[in-house]
Amino acid sequence: MRKISTLLAVVLYTVTLTAQNEKIQIRNIFDQALKSDVAYNQLKWLCENTAGRICGSPEAATAVEYMRQEMLKMNLDTVYLQSCMVKNWKRGEPEKAYILSKKMGRIEVPVSALGLSIGTGNDGLGAKIVEVSSFKELELLGKNKIEGKIVFFNKPMDPILINTFSAYGGAAGLRTGGAAEAAKYGAIGVVVRSLTLASDDHPHTGVMQYQNGIKKIPAIMISTKAADLLSSYIGQENDLGFYFRTTCQTLPDVPSNNVIGEIRGSKYPDKIITIGGHLDAWDTGQGAHDDGGGCVQSIEVLRLFTELGIKPNFTIRAVMFMDEEVAQRGGQKYAELADQNQENHVMAIELDRGVLVPRAVAFSSLDQNNTNHQKIAELFKPYNINIVKGGGGVDIGPLKQYYPSIIFGDLVTDDQRYFDFHHSENDRFEQVNKRELQLGAATIASFIYLMDHLGVE
Amino acid sequence: MRKISTLLAVVLYTVTLTAQNEKIQIRNIFDQALKSDVAYNQLKWLCENTAGRICGSPEAATAVEYMRQEMLKMNLDTVYLQSCMVKNWKRGEPEKAYILSKKMGRIEVPVSALGLSIGTGNDGLGAKIVEVSSFKELELLGKNKIEGKIVFFNKPMDPILINTFSAYGGAAGLRTGGAAEAAKYGAIGVVVRSLTLASDDHPHTGVMQYQNGIKKIPAIMISTKAADLLSSYIGQENDLGFYFRTTCQTLPDVPSNNVIGEIRGSKYPDKIITIGGHLDAWDTGQGAHDDGGGCVQSIEVLRLFTELGIKPNFTIRAVMFMDEEVAQRGGQKYAELADQNQENHVMAIELDRGVLVPRAVAFSSLDQNNTNHQKIAELFKPYNINIVKGGGGVDIGPLKQYYPSIIFGDLVTDDQRYFDFHHSENDRFEQVNKRELQLGAATIASFIYLMDHLGVE
Repeated sequence: MRKISTLLAVVLYTVTLTAQNEKIQIRNIFDQALKSDVAYNQLKWLCENTAGRICGSPEAATAVEYMRQEMLKMNLDTVYLQSCMVKNWKRGEPEKAYILSKKMGRIEVPVSALGLSIGTGNDGLGAKIVEVSSFKELELLGKNKIEGKIVFFNKPMDPILINTFSAYGGAAGLRTGGAAEAAKYGAIGVVVRSLTLASDDHPHTGVMQYQNGIKKIPAIMISTKAADLLSSYIGQENDLGFYFRTTCQTLPDVPSNNVIGEIRGSKYPDKIITIGGHLDAWDTGQGAHDDGGGCVQSIEVLRLFTELGIKPNFTIRAVMFMDEEVAQRGGQKYAELADQNQENHVMAIELDRGVLVPRAVAFSSLDQNNTNHQKIAELFKPYNINIVKGGGGVDIGPLKQYYPSIIFGDLVTDDQRYFDFHHSENDRFEQVNKRELQLGAATIASFIYLMDHLGVE
Repeated sequence: MRKISTLLAVVLYTVTLTAQNEKIQIRNIFDQALKSDVAYNQLKWLCENTAGRICGSPEAATAVEYMRQEMLKMNLDTVYLQSCMVKNWKRGEPEKAYILSKKMGRIEVPVSALGLSIGTGNDGLGAKIVEVSSFKELELLGKNKIEGKIVFFNKPMDPILINTFSAYGGAAGLRTGGAAEAAKYGAIGVVVRSLTLASDDHPHTGVMQYQNGIKKIPAIMISTKAADLLSSYIGQENDLGFYFRTTCQTLPDVPSNNVIGEIRGSKYPDKIITIGGHLDAWDTGQGAHDDGGGCVQSIEVLRLFTELGIKPNFTIRAVMFMDEEVAQRGGQKYAELADQNQENHVMAIELDRGVLVPRAVAFSSLDQNNTNHQKIAELFKPYNINIVKGGGGVDIGPLKQYYPSIIFGDLVTDDQRYFDFHHSENDRFEQVNKRELQLGAATIASFIYLMDHLGVE
């Protein structure tokens, strides 16, 4: 009996000690992150020196080389580039757009061409403008009312939704599909309201798609303030005119790279945990929140492990994906090569929700009855971080077809301000708070440490 | 038996219906808040037209009248002023300060006089400077090393604390008590490191206190970047000099006002729920986060109730307190008059943690076994709001001595960015996000609605 109780005591002691160690290790990760400027300064450099790094641009190439060099300094087990062909859309000259009012004359408005849109040609495009807020309205108006006109899609993001990503999702279809839908009824161009809950003068951008067999017509986005102004003019004046000029074009694909660095696993070197963000960004801003932050946070995970002497059991790989914004070629290439190289991917986490205060870690395998998951939830409480079911992202998504049982993860940030910056010139370094960046990196590093330590389940 | 089960069904139906109604009412409150610009525009006006509204200033008087007028428009049951005498400290001419280096010459640094500090006189104050990070270090150096010198209190807020208010609390004693402590050892002036986790060029300010019988010496705060620079000079050069000039002074007290508006309770008009913020602000900024936001959110609670036709059972009173920053006279006066007028105060909530995304409602009576509290927690879940034990604030604090069983409440905001603005010229309207303001107002209005509805316990 005494032997059993001694054994029990030893087991209990070991369990307590392990839990204690995990608690201390997470505290170490947060302390190290909160006292370091490394990731913040990397983001500063990226924003100041590679602003406008849309895939295929010289700025994107500079960003690739910079991130590679930063990782080479970090004493990792390997750092390499993974080449892939990417889209090569060019914005061209600054866009011009005017409301053409019979009463008020020509009123210039801030607009931005949509990614993959064709240009208007040198002379620009002028026509009467028709406002709709949905594809249904477009259909109701029909060819009769649309043909030869410019269609203005004016659907604000719904402010009453607490999750701003849901509000974005509810309106983004007009941006991606608006040109093709309007062209079906003979429209000659489209103007789309910017996807933000803020009322301001910054036009946002983003990708759009044409449909096979449907005529390609030019598409632009207009700032929310100008959208409200345009709508009020349409309300007051019959047959209001609109003019815009864009010189954007899609050139042939060019080569670019994903940038990769890794710490080899001590127990399971063949099993890979991916943590990544995308290195390309819209050309109108600095790509601070979207997604320079996700990139520097990803390599910060490796730095924190290295600095603290944490030797992971699994291989931890930081990936800076290329071409997320336009055609997601980097993410597709990463998954294809993983399969070709017979890699074993057990978990992948994508950081692409802005450098904002972390509120939760989402992962797809979450099971409230799993004692390890309960432990993770408990260990995160002092940091005000929840764990929730979820995870995934467009760059890691393609892994799923090759690794059906892969666990996806995600850092859930507080998204209230995110669309104030997203895809606009407002996405700048000054809009990033250092502590929010640090806390995000510490949270995801802690999560990876815990999953690695507890066995990834 | 059938009768009993019918009765049970009726009771269950009523309970479900009530819960359903509460859910709908909270959704209405959030919808109304998220679609309205009223509070946001009030804050804009306040920031643009009454910047620098320290108590006793003409700007504070303008703010009082503006808030009164805004509430008069709102169809409340009563709107009135509550007069009180307030401190009248004047900053005087812009401060000047220089590091005096033998090697590098005179280097200007950004500083701000501390509230209630005396000035240096016209000629300013020049002396050798000694750096310490605590009162203990000051004691160890002793009179011998301190006498005739300027003391530089250089203790950064601790970045590893997750709660930034704790980090602030850990360093704020040097600001409030530094001058008196240094004067005990014969110092002739003090320079205190700004209380922020950001590294920038904005000197912060805040109140300080002298001690009876201890010589009054001038006190200033220096920006964090300049504090680091000064510290590095002190490290490199023996007997480094420092000079500063301030012309601040405390004039005799002047009259000012708390601004009050209320909706009379339909069932318990004599029982009062107070919701308030402070209308005065440091003179160096616009007082957007601290605490114009708390003021407009407080009256937004009344507006939301009025707009939605919610007739509270208890009297809901919005109070804009005066002189929180300097001597808390408004809060004291409010409590004294409540007692003199034999009012019955059941709950008081203070909004003074910045206009940032709400994470929790704190209240002092929280009991995890209380079914009403469990209901509140459940109803807040879709809005990502927790309920936690806590509550209180310096303006509502004085009520406690007259109403020992009063329930205190608080809106817990995400505080990571708060000290980037706090008490500095950086506390401006542009730093406020409209949705974060709206969500805070909706959260506290919902909490008051639920407490009022469920009986305040």
